[in-house]
Amino acid sequence: MVYLCRRESFQAAHRLFNPAWSDAENEEAFGVCANPNWHGHNFELIVTVKGQPLPETGCVIDLKRLSRIIRQEVIERLDHKNLNLDVDFLQGKIPSCEIIVIEIWKILAQALRPYANVQLHALKLIETKNNFVEYFGEPVVAQ
Amino acid sequence: MVYLCRRESFQAAHRLFNPAWSDAENEEAFGVCANPNWHGHNFELIVTVKGQPLPETGCVIDLKRLSRIIRQEVIERLDHKNLNLDVDFLQGKIPSCEIIVIEIWKILAQALRPYANVQLHALKLIETKNNFVEYFGEPVVAQ
Amino acid sequence: MVYLCRRESFQAAHRLFNPAWSDAENEEAFGVCANPNWHGHNFELIVTVKGQPLPETGCVIDLKRLSRIIRQEVIERLDHKNLNLDVDFLQGKIPSCEIIVIEIWKILAQALRPYANVQLHALKLIETKNNFVEYFGEPVVAQ
Amino acid sequence: MVYLCRRESFQAAHRLFNPAWSDAENEEAFGVCANPNWHGHNFELIVTVKGQPLPETGCVIDLKRLSRIIRQEVIERLDHKNLNLDVDFLQGKIPSCEIIVIEIWKILAQALRPYANVQLHALKLIETKNNFVEYFGEPVVAQ
Amino acid sequence: MVYLCRRESFQAAHRLFNPAWSDAENEEAFGVCANPNWHGHNFELIVTVKGQPLPETGCVIDLKRLSRIIRQEVIERLDHKNLNLDVDFLQGKIPSCEIIVIEIWKILAQALRPYANVQLHALKLIETKNNFVEYFGEPVVAQ
Amino acid sequence: MVYLCRRESFQAAHRLFNPAWSDAENEEAFGVCANPNWHGHNFELIVTVKGQPLPETGCVIDLKRLSRIIRQEVIERLDHKNLNLDVDFLQGKIPSCEIIVIEIWKILAQALRPYANVQLHALKLIETKNNFVEYFGEPVVAQ
Repeated sequence: MVYLCRRESFQAAHRLFNPAWSDAENEEAFGVCANPNWHGHNFELIVTVKGQPLPETGCVIDLKRLSRIIRQEVIERLDHKNLNLDVDFLQGKIPSCEIIVIEIWKILAQALRPYANVQLHALKLIETKNNFVEYFGEPVVAQ
Repeated sequence: MVYLCRRESFQAAHRLFNPAWSDAENEEAFGVCANPNWHGHNFELIVTVKGQPLPETGCVIDLKRLSRIIRQEVIERLDHKNLNLDVDFLQGKIPSCEIIVIEIWKILAQALRPYANVQLHALKLIETKNNFVEYFGEPVVAQ
Repeated sequence: MVYLCRRESFQAAHRLFNPAWSDAENEEAFGVCANPNWHGHNFELIVTVKGQPLPETGCVIDLKRLSRIIRQEVIERLDHKNLNLDVDFLQGKIPSCEIIVIEIWKILAQALRPYANVQLHALKLIETKNNFVEYFGEPVVAQ
Repeated sequence: MVYLCRRESFQAAHRLFNPAWSDAENEEAFGVCANPNWHGHNFELIVTVKGQPLPETGCVIDLKRLSRIIRQEVIERLDHKNLNLDVDFLQGKIPSCEIIVIEIWKILAQALRPYANVQLHALKLIETKNNFVEYFGEPVVAQ
Repeated sequence: MVYLCRRESFQAAHRLFNPAWSDAENEEAFGVCANPNWHGHNFELIVTVKGQPLPETGCVIDLKRLSRIIRQEVIERLDHKNLNLDVDFLQGKIPSCEIIVIEIWKILAQALRPYANVQLHALKLIETKNNFVEYFGEPVVAQ
Repeated sequence: MVYLCRRESFQAAHRLFNPAWSDAENEEAFGVCANPNWHGHNFELIVTVKGQPLPETGCVIDLKRLSRIIRQEVIERLDHKNLNLDVDFLQGKIPSCEIIVIEIWKILAQALRPYANVQLHALKLIETKNNFVEYFGEPVVAQ
């Protein structure tokens, strides 16, 4: 098993707030991240798949294909977007890094299903150099 | 003369658009950067001042003081803000990197005037690792 | 389970030496790192906690609170300090990255105990871009 | 168990191609990476070993020794080399990151065998900031 | 005047050698960089143009257009290429960073001539994090 | 004229304090940087020389030679040292970045004098990612 990682990036606006709460409660919970006029980040997404290198190419999967899948399925829907308003798969959710990464997992696990040689292993979503999350999907309970 | 540089950062939302133009014209000029629902970045600001090191401290200026000035005068007005809506010194302007850096120069040149030992030399504003601007102020024509 | 990572940093002096050994033995074992007059580093500490995102915030833990805990419990005791002389929890120990990271684990595992929703998962201590350690705590034997 | 990581780097040329295929097939499979006149990268290799810190040094292994082993056994055979033509342990193989990392594992697992206190845990091979692989060796099936 | 910077990258193979010299003389002058089978790098190119921000856009030049020019005129001719063999504008030249950056300047100064609002100011060519060059063109004698 | 840059690094301890002042005055002026037991940093030094590429090599100067000069003249005297106690050329001086960079300039300007083809142009000394200085030498008054 080799773990192959591909980094892509997107720049987006968002805010953290719970619509069931008052403005004061949101500011108490989220601080400046609740600013009603939004703020934003240069996000980086690192997708890790695992698999055996194919004998004829030496590669686990064609990296250009993997990059194209990530871009078409995820990046194009997030880049230069408002994560609260513009993204179908985040509708009705709080676009924290934790929630975004779980939703991206669902999309990529589905999109990579036809590629029998690889399995989605991990996602890393970097909001700033100081704040980032990792997710290994639900079935990987033993990690 | 030694050039002393201090890096600070802020995370903000913005969009590029000219209110005198139609949506189609804005999209033609600015592409995805004109998204009406905003996008955002992790901005980095590098402030360079120049001066002679003071004999008693070996420093051009106390770095903690320089950092405090930059934060109070600039960063607190930009961080976790919408650059089009929330920032007094950008009202009525297109918040491109070029415009932002010119406006920050005016503020910092003014704020640093009481510090006779240093002179504002350069500002670098980094929007992404691929896109950034530098500004040396108007009087420095010979640069 | 989502893994949430927070990076903090501290700048400190230290030396590697075993007081039971002669100077020659220390230099043999540790080379320039045994310099009696100390040397130093810009250390970076990455703390990873794991947990389920809370439904009402979408977050595993409030990042500002996590940052505050790390700073109060660890960073303030290490930053701009001499790791051999100034740090209570390193007294009588050789302040190698391996030992520092184990001692930080004990402190943070204790400090995070009141936060039932998260569990300390990993610490990464970066001494230089070329040298760093990771630690997953004692109980995680199966890792 | 503490995980100790050492980063080394090498600059090399390579191309991806399968000698059993026509030029057209190679270009179809590998795109520009199949360029017959080669291309190249600044590769970074991160070697992770795990072990208990030794009581007398506080270290898992002497980092200078670990660095020397990696350089002598691996880096000197790869640095400023053509990975298809100049490297004995890659002869007859497609020098993809996946294949390179597996072959480096064999060499380092062997070279580290005399050091009873540590065990090779992971290799990370970075071809570009966007493309990299990780490998944990064959026996670590449960990872 | 605002200085606008755009970073692009290419991965290429090259070797340093003077065809008028013997192999021994080349190895004496260039060391491992003269390896007849080539080596390679992840190069980064930072292009700086200067100009007044246009009142209607707030920008010195449309960054997407600047990026497209750099890619079409320079990057596509260098990326995944052999700098000694595959690049028309480097034929008969030693592809050191110094020579490459001078030749890129000629191309970009020409390509940017139609854009009256901006002037090419500087090129930075990064071969590794440790080795890079800057060039300001010939006419800028006063720099 | 091409500007050639070489990055080297050193890890050192220091403290900022003026021996003519009381402890209280030093702490007032320098804050935590005055800690009597020292602190430390991973310093990076970027040396820029300028010159015409030599026709027979395409290079301004042999980079390995430039690196060797910087290491022998500067890095070996600073690396894993205490900048207040161990460094001859900093005796009796406050080892702020400003002072260090001026003293390094004197050494390197002298050491590079035999290399008629190049001239020392700039030094950049990076203490942390947030704090760094640049120096262009005394004669370059017009910069």
